[in-house]
Amino acid sequence: MEIDRKIRYGMVGGGPGAFIGEVHRMAAALDGKIELVAGSFSSKPEKSRKMGNKLHLSEDRVYTSYEEMAEEEAALPADERIDFVSITTPNHLHFPVAKAFIEQGIHVVCDKPMTHTIEEAEELCRLVEEHDVIFALTHNYTGYPMVKEARKLVADGKLGTLRKVVVEYPQGWLAQVGEDDNIWRLDPDRAGISSAVGDIGSHAENLVEYITGQKLTELYADIHSFGKGYELEDDANMLVHYDGGLRGILYCSQVSVGEENDLNIRLYGDEASLEWHQENPNYLRIKYEDAPEEVYKRGNTYLSDAAQFGNRIPQGHPEGFIEAFANIYSNVADVITARLSGEEANALAHDFPTVYDGAHGVHFINKAIESGKNRKWVDMEYDPTDG
Amino acid sequence: MEIDRKIRYGMVGGGPGAFIGEVHRMAAALDGKIELVAGSFSSKPEKSRKMGNKLHLSEDRVYTSYEEMAEEEAALPADERIDFVSITTPNHLHFPVAKAFIEQGIHVVCDKPMTHTIEEAEELCRLVEEHDVIFALTHNYTGYPMVKEARKLVADGKLGTLRKVVVEYPQGWLAQVGEDDNIWRLDPDRAGISSAVGDIGSHAENLVEYITGQKLTELYADIHSFGKGYELEDDANMLVHYDGGLRGILYCSQVSVGEENDLNIRLYGDEASLEWHQENPNYLRIKYEDAPEEVYKRGNTYLSDAAQFGNRIPQGHPEGFIEAFANIYSNVADVITARLSGEEANALAHDFPTVYDGAHGVHFINKAIESGKNRKWVDMEYDPTDG
Amino acid sequence: MEIDRKIRYGMVGGGPGAFIGEVHRMAAALDGKIELVAGSFSSKPEKSRKMGNKLHLSEDRVYTSYEEMAEEEAALPADERIDFVSITTPNHLHFPVAKAFIEQGIHVVCDKPMTHTIEEAEELCRLVEEHDVIFALTHNYTGYPMVKEARKLVADGKLGTLRKVVVEYPQGWLAQVGEDDNIWRLDPDRAGISSAVGDIGSHAENLVEYITGQKLTELYADIHSFGKGYELEDDANMLVHYDGGLRGILYCSQVSVGEENDLNIRLYGDEASLEWHQENPNYLRIKYEDAPEEVYKRGNTYLSDAAQFGNRIPQGHPEGFIEAFANIYSNVADVITARLSGEEANALAHDFPTVYDGAHGVHFINKAIESGKNRKWVDMEYDPTDG
Amino acid sequence: MEIDRKIRYGMVGGGPGAFIGEVHRMAAALDGKIELVAGSFSSKPEKSRKMGNKLHLSEDRVYTSYEEMAEEEAALPADERIDFVSITTPNHLHFPVAKAFIEQGIHVVCDKPMTHTIEEAEELCRLVEEHDVIFALTHNYTGYPMVKEARKLVADGKLGTLRKVVVEYPQGWLAQVGEDDNIWRLDPDRAGISSAVGDIGSHAENLVEYITGQKLTELYADIHSFGKGYELEDDANMLVHYDGGLRGILYCSQVSVGEENDLNIRLYGDEASLEWHQENPNYLRIKYEDAPEEVYKRGNTYLSDAAQFGNRIPQGHPEGFIEAFANIYSNVADVITARLSGEEANALAHDFPTVYDGAHGVHFINKAIESGKNRKWVDMEYDPTDG
Repeated sequence: MEIDRKIRYGMVGGGPGAFIGEVHRMAAALDGKIELVAGSFSSKPEKSRKMGNKLHLSEDRVYTSYEEMAEEEAALPADERIDFVSITTPNHLHFPVAKAFIEQGIHVVCDKPMTHTIEEAEELCRLVEEHDVIFALTHNYTGYPMVKEARKLVADGKLGTLRKVVVEYPQGWLAQVGEDDNIWRLDPDRAGISSAVGDIGSHAENLVEYITGQKLTELYADIHSFGKGYELEDDANMLVHYDGGLRGILYCSQVSVGEENDLNIRLYGDEASLEWHQENPNYLRIKYEDAPEEVYKRGNTYLSDAAQFGNRIPQGHPEGFIEAFANIYSNVADVITARLSGEEANALAHDFPTVYDGAHGVHFINKAIESGKNRKWVDMEYDPTDG
Repeated sequence: MEIDRKIRYGMVGGGPGAFIGEVHRMAAALDGKIELVAGSFSSKPEKSRKMGNKLHLSEDRVYTSYEEMAEEEAALPADERIDFVSITTPNHLHFPVAKAFIEQGIHVVCDKPMTHTIEEAEELCRLVEEHDVIFALTHNYTGYPMVKEARKLVADGKLGTLRKVVVEYPQGWLAQVGEDDNIWRLDPDRAGISSAVGDIGSHAENLVEYITGQKLTELYADIHSFGKGYELEDDANMLVHYDGGLRGILYCSQVSVGEENDLNIRLYGDEASLEWHQENPNYLRIKYEDAPEEVYKRGNTYLSDAAQFGNRIPQGHPEGFIEAFANIYSNVADVITARLSGEEANALAHDFPTVYDGAHGVHFINKAIESGKNRKWVDMEYDPTDG
Repeated sequence: MEIDRKIRYGMVGGGPGAFIGEVHRMAAALDGKIELVAGSFSSKPEKSRKMGNKLHLSEDRVYTSYEEMAEEEAALPADERIDFVSITTPNHLHFPVAKAFIEQGIHVVCDKPMTHTIEEAEELCRLVEEHDVIFALTHNYTGYPMVKEARKLVADGKLGTLRKVVVEYPQGWLAQVGEDDNIWRLDPDRAGISSAVGDIGSHAENLVEYITGQKLTELYADIHSFGKGYELEDDANMLVHYDGGLRGILYCSQVSVGEENDLNIRLYGDEASLEWHQENPNYLRIKYEDAPEEVYKRGNTYLSDAAQFGNRIPQGHPEGFIEAFANIYSNVADVITARLSGEEANALAHDFPTVYDGAHGVHFINKAIESGKNRKWVDMEYDPTDG
Repeated sequence: MEIDRKIRYGMVGGGPGAFIGEVHRMAAALDGKIELVAGSFSSKPEKSRKMGNKLHLSEDRVYTSYEEMAEEEAALPADERIDFVSITTPNHLHFPVAKAFIEQGIHVVCDKPMTHTIEEAEELCRLVEEHDVIFALTHNYTGYPMVKEARKLVADGKLGTLRKVVVEYPQGWLAQVGEDDNIWRLDPDRAGISSAVGDIGSHAENLVEYITGQKLTELYADIHSFGKGYELEDDANMLVHYDGGLRGILYCSQVSVGEENDLNIRLYGDEASLEWHQENPNYLRIKYEDAPEEVYKRGNTYLSDAAQFGNRIPQGHPEGFIEAFANIYSNVADVITARLSGEEANALAHDFPTVYDGAHGVHFINKAIESGKNRKWVDMEYDPTDG
């Protein structure tokens, strides 16, 4: 499966100083099969233009608004226009930007959380189906090869019947934030109804569903704002029950001072358990009742095809965050290439989070905050295609 | 402060094959200031006698029942009789055994949980006061030097205002237990109303209170029995709130397959955080918002007096579980020695869990199970001297 | 300092299946400032053409030999031709390929070891001076931010006077190689006089010199071939003395079964010591005589400018091997850009290994093998500009 | 196999403030089968007497010299006198003290290095044979259960043919010692011809021979004194060759600032490798070419009898330095008990270092210093029974 050019994309957001826009660009560039050709990098035209220059884009492909970009790109001939758009704006813009491009039939890679409201999320599901576009959400942590290995081991029954999960996402960057720091993630207008759950708790929840294949049935959230000068929660501790009998703990925190980005999961079945840490992502630990603990290491031939597919360099040469992120881009590019060439993509390339995962994530955030505010268990059953 | 003999003790429980009795004996022997001189090691006289022989006890100091032992030891001259008794029986016997010895004015070291019911616990508090005996409960994990250092750092304000705690106690030894294994910890008659919370959750709770000095105000427990053939919970996940504003997660599990005895705590203040793992107990990690993480190591001169006091050998020569356990015995021996010699013990020697900690523990177990059964928050305020 | 286009490069070597060619391409692409426009990927024209197609190169920029490529690229107008060439062939071709491009005034990024013989190495030094080209050798491990931090800490005197170094580079990939595996690194014609020392020992030696700024004065090597069917050493243990009084151990091994790519260094001064492991590269440990060990972590504001300069993403988001490799490319691109724009590059961008480091490396390899064969100390003093 | 009393011992050395004497006493006391009944704790009678009081010894069993103690203890009736003596003096006294007790037919536990000179060592071998006493040398690190497991795995062929060893023993306690600190280990009169090699290098060498069963055939040592004001080496780096084809690196250092007591070993065969660290002694890592790394953990049923025999408490409850040390005492006590009762001891109880290991150690120290001073390889072949 090959086409005789790189896949082309444009970016909305990711202007000067935006860390996540840089990450998307590095992730897209890594494998040499995707090129950036257009962008609307800021709502301020001057900033957008400057970014375009810095990225050596053609000036006529740098736009002053996402609406203009969606329209003009769609109007270009098929052998020039972007194949997909990357949306890396603050949260409140994900919905209108995604909508604009989907309606032009342009594929989408979108940051999470997908939208502010569940209605918007369902509208995107509907639009994706209607326009038959490819939509990928950057729950990037599922791009790590050893997370893919974890999913495969669970699916193969290595752990037996799943019983308990402990998934944690502590960060400390808000621990000492002052009232004047004007952080958009703490501003409900731009971030939505949640800070910690929306930004990182949703990654933790997605990680569990990805690895286990089980869906949340109910949760109880204890949420709190330790910081001063803002309303949104910066810490959330949850009790969680899943539809396959799994139960446990999910927590996320932005005030765990000294923690950097320590997403981690421990998952226990009746036959074995696994442990994975995002900050040391090339290793996966498997533990048994009466056998030595095993350390699976990225890049080895004893790993499954799933782990090999998302692998670039040999064992012992550490891969990191950008490589995992790049796996979403690489897979999206492969699936787009397959469409363009009229062939089937490798089944493993379809492994990226979809618009339905996005709707699930928005549902999770809303329900967690509802539980926290009412101090009640909430029923999580939900089918986004069922609006 | 010295007397010209070793402190003498007797043991109730700890017969052939009882792991915890062995641990008590090793802990008591380690520092060469305590000697075992009497015992009622089993409810079966023959077994008790055999154990006495094995331990080279004088035959007239091996008893066929704890009642007999309490009476006869009390009747011996002061320069012969035991100074204290160690109680290492199954849980249901802690209360009657402790009562029998306290009423004879004999000091007590007792395994936890202290009693089955809160009424028994309060009765012991009353008896300890009435008979003015020393009573130590073996919440042994607070005997580790680096736990003492953690408490000191918190007291000194190193962490700032405490915000969040995550305390975990996963074990896996019940993960594959069958219905026929006849484990006393799963039998309500011998273990009481709880398995996981009573056996290990109470250690976790005690560890938090020891390090932080804060008391639980409310908790919510999600409890479950994953195993087949028994009623008591083997897994408990709790949301916890403390009286100083600290909140977080406490969990304990006996079905976390592959985990051995991984009690661990992470504690976050607004200025720094700490992390300690029982399985690697000579290290304490301190993390900051904007400075390198620090690893404090047992045995170094930069540690506080509290950590030095419970220290035997130089840095880099690992101390373990028995040494921590021995710190309770050593402290009890020092306090008894002080009484015998009419002097003051070193203030640091008074650092062992008391009968009130025991009552708190029983209260915690009862309330956690109540919360779990009713799926409700429970109010934890409690003063054991207030019965 | 900016130019209005990306820096352009061509590659020699790196055909289908060549891991290191892929790494160079990913490293060059990562930051979006370099583009691949030409190549001679294999000595077999068909293979080279195929690779060019896969990489979406223009067909007239895919060459059938490096000689043709050097000539034809040099003949292109300045606004089309490559700015530099990447040489990723087997070792024996480094010299002729580098020579061909340098003589055309084209800058070079070259794999190590730079050449087979010291004469070739000195010839390259001379040519680089004569043609005034930029020459970077991919001792990529010095690209890691925490290695740069280590160098800065040493330069700042944090460790005091350096005394001892232990640098290790164990791998296991040759542990079970058979006689029929036809591995080019074991073939003297393609690999030169050395396997382990040439391939990985030279990285270890470079790492010490980079961090400490000290030069080897003498070494004693104990070399051995554990494998069957080849002559070159697969294991080398060395005693090393440096000109600043540092002494210690350097070893490299390709038969350390189960080790993946565990380059690591411990460096002891009279005031503090440091430890760094390539397989967990985002952390640097600093230890003291009487203060807690410190763990420096990539991406934090307390790190030096040198560590920040080679940093892409925030703390806790692990960077890996490709990012470190990319730092060489990024620096080379910045220095080329500075030349093109007639400005000064950031001083930190000049931080990449040069042709003189390459000559030092070849000298090291030759002397280590000489020592090993003669079982004698060898004098290491050497000035490559002094040929 | 049982006798109806504890094994009795006396101590020479171990006066106030002597760390190693305390360790011996704790190790002897731990299992409740040995009791201290006599001692000559210091060459100063007053100090010795004070120590005896502190240890609650009978006054007539506290002696003013080791000569007196040997004689008087030997003169006591068999059911009173000590079964063995523990020698914990500075090095130069090991020989005369051991000689005195052996000649009285009293068993010996002796610190290492066993003697200053090889002649003394051989004399002890001869005396031990002549008087048929049990003699144990406290190479205590071989007492760790996971070291015993390592030996068993090697003996069972798990690693295949052994190829390479890296054994390290870095400490930092001399890194900042001044000329006035008057440290006996740096004084040739009391410490002998070596500091680092004699004190810790000999442990490293013993560890390799214990685990592998191979004997040194030749070594090359690079020794150095970094400190000021003393002659003895504080750092030694060695190349080592063994009689089974194993070769590698052995180093020891007392100036590796920030290291505490980090004895560790990595051992590579052609099929697997192992890694063990004294500071985290409950874990043993086994690595393979193409299978996940395994972590063996103390206390588990999958371990060999050898590891179980030296085990006291369940998995996850860390054992440390004292427990490993106690395994030597426990084994010696079992072997003495067997003699007294006329039965066979458990074969595993014979697992402690002997007088021949001690002679080997003295030989190793002498040869290493000889190599270091002459900058020459030294032939290590040696049979202590062959004097």
